[in-house]
Amino acid sequence: MAEKVTIADVARHANVSRQTVSNVLNSPEVVKEGTRQRVLAAVETLGYRVSAAARQMRTGRSRLLAVRIETTQDGMNVFDRFLHGLTESAARSGYRVLLYAAGDDRAEIATIDQLLGEFEPDGFVLTSTHHGDPRASWLAERDLPFVTFGRPWGAPAAGHPWVDVDGAAGTESATRHLLGEGHRRIGFIGWEAGSGVGDDRKAGWSRTLAAEGLDAGLTLETDGSSAQGQAAARELTGRGATALVCVSDSVALGALQVLPAVVGFDDTPVAAAVGLTSLGQPLAEAAAHCVDLLTGRLSGRPAAAHVLLTPSLVIRKEPRS
Amino acid sequence: MAEKVTIADVARHANVSRQTVSNVLNSPEVVKEGTRQRVLAAVETLGYRVSAAARQMRTGRSRLLAVRIETTQDGMNVFDRFLHGLTESAARSGYRVLLYAAGDDRAEIATIDQLLGEFEPDGFVLTSTHHGDPRASWLAERDLPFVTFGRPWGAPAAGHPWVDVDGAAGTESATRHLLGEGHRRIGFIGWEAGSGVGDDRKAGWSRTLAAEGLDAGLTLETDGSSAQGQAAARELTGRGATALVCVSDSVALGALQVLPAVVGFDDTPVAAAVGLTSLGQPLAEAAAHCVDLLTGRLSGRPAAAHVLLTPSLVIRKEPRS
Repeated sequence: MAEKVTIADVARHANVSRQTVSNVLNSPEVVKEGTRQRVLAAVETLGYRVSAAARQMRTGRSRLLAVRIETTQDGMNVFDRFLHGLTESAARSGYRVLLYAAGDDRAEIATIDQLLGEFEPDGFVLTSTHHGDPRASWLAERDLPFVTFGRPWGAPAAGHPWVDVDGAAGTESATRHLLGEGHRRIGFIGWEAGSGVGDDRKAGWSRTLAAEGLDAGLTLETDGSSAQGQAAARELTGRGATALVCVSDSVALGALQVLPAVVGFDDTPVAAAVGLTSLGQPLAEAAAHCVDLLTGRLSGRPAAAHVLLTPSLVIRKEPRS
Repeated sequence: MAEKVTIADVARHANVSRQTVSNVLNSPEVVKEGTRQRVLAAVETLGYRVSAAARQMRTGRSRLLAVRIETTQDGMNVFDRFLHGLTESAARSGYRVLLYAAGDDRAEIATIDQLLGEFEPDGFVLTSTHHGDPRASWLAERDLPFVTFGRPWGAPAAGHPWVDVDGAAGTESATRHLLGEGHRRIGFIGWEAGSGVGDDRKAGWSRTLAAEGLDAGLTLETDGSSAQGQAAARELTGRGATALVCVSDSVALGALQVLPAVVGFDDTPVAAAVGLTSLGQPLAEAAAHCVDLLTGRLSGRPAAAHVLLTPSLVIRKEPRS
């Protein structure tokens, strides 16, 4: 590589002081427009690049956003799409994504604490928020910038920025789709009550049936597995259900072994592979909003407090199973 | 948070100079054992943590390993498992994973160049190596530490460390499995010739049939889609094939619409969902080896030049489609 261009080289080339170059790079609003343009031209001509370490020492900013990498046991998740969107959106704003793994909330907090000491990320993106989630309050108490992908379930007064997908709106559109196909006895296969995401998805189904004056009693809880989804579908069809809205593609995959009129949630590759109608989350958009809310806070820009996105129903005509 | 403990606090507490503390943290071999223990005790007592920026200024090390986040169009990939393994293994060695996105090799090199200027990663993990891959030579020419997940296809003399999965051994075990079930006319559905990974997977199938004196002519190339997989399966069964080894789960999913004796590659969530027998790559192990080879080079430890792992056949009895 060519020899490193220093801030002194830029200053000499633009005929300004090193402090002015630093101001242009770190507090451009204090520099006159003409000077700013001259310095930026010198930066470009010389190919000056700010060393992360030097910049961090000077500005206290690492330009790193930290996020936990998620996994699920059945691999039927779409977190990789969110992460890809986050990486691309962060880069467009001059930030990079730092990954960490953690087995549970407690381990995640310990890891965040360690990262703060070692890498000093400028902000954090928390995913999979849930009732009694200690992570957001831990960060809030320390006044650390963060955004959550997921609402502050059970803590609606939490003042932090968040982005989420409207699960109830999703299952409402799924239920309306099945009503449009002539179904009247539409069941719901969910997770155990008490999960914010699961209860929200169930609410959209039940309110839609209630609005039509139809029975919203055909529902069962599962552990989220395809096996329990299949068993629940068998019981609900035994009780007269002709169509089922499901809390996840995993559950829906099991239900699909019992009857064809099934809608899943998340539009995973598995849904596409087996021809399952499902609700797709706008994950790239959600990731972009997360970056926007977080970098907005970091740069003092006023930004929306939260963003609620609507999932899209992906209708597939011929389930294969 | 408590006020930050500085290197000066540690020096005072251990009754040594700041240079000695720095030596203990960065070049422990130059410090006497007794002094080293006293300093480390002070570090622990005071809860001193090295700031990344300060350490990087001092040591020239960022403790960051950079890797591109991959996506595939059909979402039927297992990169997220590799990335999870990489994140965990890196953390165990005191490194963190920095993500970047890039659309092609040229964009990836530009992004790496930019990262070098901005974040100075200590090393790079390249994935999806292929014939004529310019990335490895770009890094090698600059003497930057890196490891590839994937062999240096077409450049066997490349001296860089690599980790790969033995695709030919995988399709050999798939072919032997089908032979054991009584099949004699076993076909192969691949990608277009010229792909290192695809040609390797085909080679294991053809050499196994050749060793048994059986016909290895039942083979077709596809674009990797399920649709072309299905069409190829139809043609190959028309030519007498009773079983098929496939280059990917995506292709196998299409073939499964035509006949039940199909083996895929990658053991994706889709394979599990539809009951497809498939070859699973040991991705956590591969990621751990990548970190080991790279951190070995970074710390001057002698390390293996490369590691070739064997995939496992995951046999599923009842395909659903």
